[in-house]
Amino acid sequence: MNYPKSLKDLIESFKKLPGIGEKSAERMALATLELDQEILDTFSSSLKSIKEKIKKCEVCHNYCEDDKCEICKNEGRDKTTICVVEEPKNVILFERVGSYNGLYHVLDGLISPLEGITPDQINIDSLLKRIEDGNVKEIIFALKPSIEGETTSLYISKLLEGKDIKISKIAHGIPMGAEMDYLDSLTLEMALENRSQLNN
Amino acid sequence: MNYPKSLKDLIESFKKLPGIGEKSAERMALATLELDQEILDTFSSSLKSIKEKIKKCEVCHNYCEDDKCEICKNEGRDKTTICVVEEPKNVILFERVGSYNGLYHVLDGLISPLEGITPDQINIDSLLKRIEDGNVKEIIFALKPSIEGETTSLYISKLLEGKDIKISKIAHGIPMGAEMDYLDSLTLEMALENRSQLNN
Repeated sequence: MNYPKSLKDLIESFKKLPGIGEKSAERMALATLELDQEILDTFSSSLKSIKEKIKKCEVCHNYCEDDKCEICKNEGRDKTTICVVEEPKNVILFERVGSYNGLYHVLDGLISPLEGITPDQINIDSLLKRIEDGNVKEIIFALKPSIEGETTSLYISKLLEGKDIKISKIAHGIPMGAEMDYLDSLTLEMALENRSQLNN
Repeated sequence: MNYPKSLKDLIESFKKLPGIGEKSAERMALATLELDQEILDTFSSSLKSIKEKIKKCEVCHNYCEDDKCEICKNEGRDKTTICVVEEPKNVILFERVGSYNGLYHVLDGLISPLEGITPDQINIDSLLKRIEDGNVKEIIFALKPSIEGETTSLYISKLLEGKDIKISKIAHGIPMGAEMDYLDSLTLEMALENRSQLNN
């Protein structure tokens, strides 16, 4: 004997989510029995329609519900700067910081010879087109500090050679508040290499 | 700027589940975008109908989809023994062990003066009725080792005084494979008290 079929089905559905094993799925499925039907109805219809409602912005590939995302549509943003990120959720991260007022470009992946991801499989062409079309003055790479991240920013930088555009990448170094003892050597090496001069 | 409304709504829904905070809810909501629509449809309809489909067994209060649960309907089970548990999920735990062939009774709670849960708020009456009606020979308490668990088994035992029924409770002691060093003193005390004699 096990759970009734409808509960087992719901447990199986929860297990499709990342990081959710048997125990967590069971706990969540049982918890739904304690929720109000109204909450379950909202949850249910959100799930059903999410893929249809969420689109990719035709300009920057960020998540949106129309053709263009809220950031690309916002007239107050500085259209001369584009911050290049790997995934839509990185956009949210930077937006939460709140100090950046430029636009974004979501690559939807990074070049990875190991995983067989070639430059034409990520949104590089559309980035080049944005640069051709507009008056972009700076491209900021905000990709993760990995071989794939470095390869991707190097590759795009090469394509932009000769153009009158400032190319930069976000600083890699010691995170604020970190204990020096617990830092890995690659981070320390990066921090040393990217040291900034304090006197004149 | 934050996530589009439909994504935000889905994140909020995930946050209604136990132990799911902002970060996990976000991760799960974003992951749904990568799932097949078919999987989302199944998930969605499971969620919507779960409360309507899952009923409580009219005999033992275990989860079921009909009037009676699979265990109560099973003619092969020993109907003279009832194992008393707190929640339906405890039934599954014991069923997975596989060695118990009797019936169950789900109390749906424990007597707790602190939380204001009185005997009439849990399924004690229906347990007494089962004992009156049938030829029950043994009641096994499998409640958690807490004041509430002890109070509840003591309370029910008192009600059964004078009846020709064997009353037992599952053993509390040192779990198999445990490191002695890490056991709490209450468990050790229980283990000492419930020691079993090895010679004649």
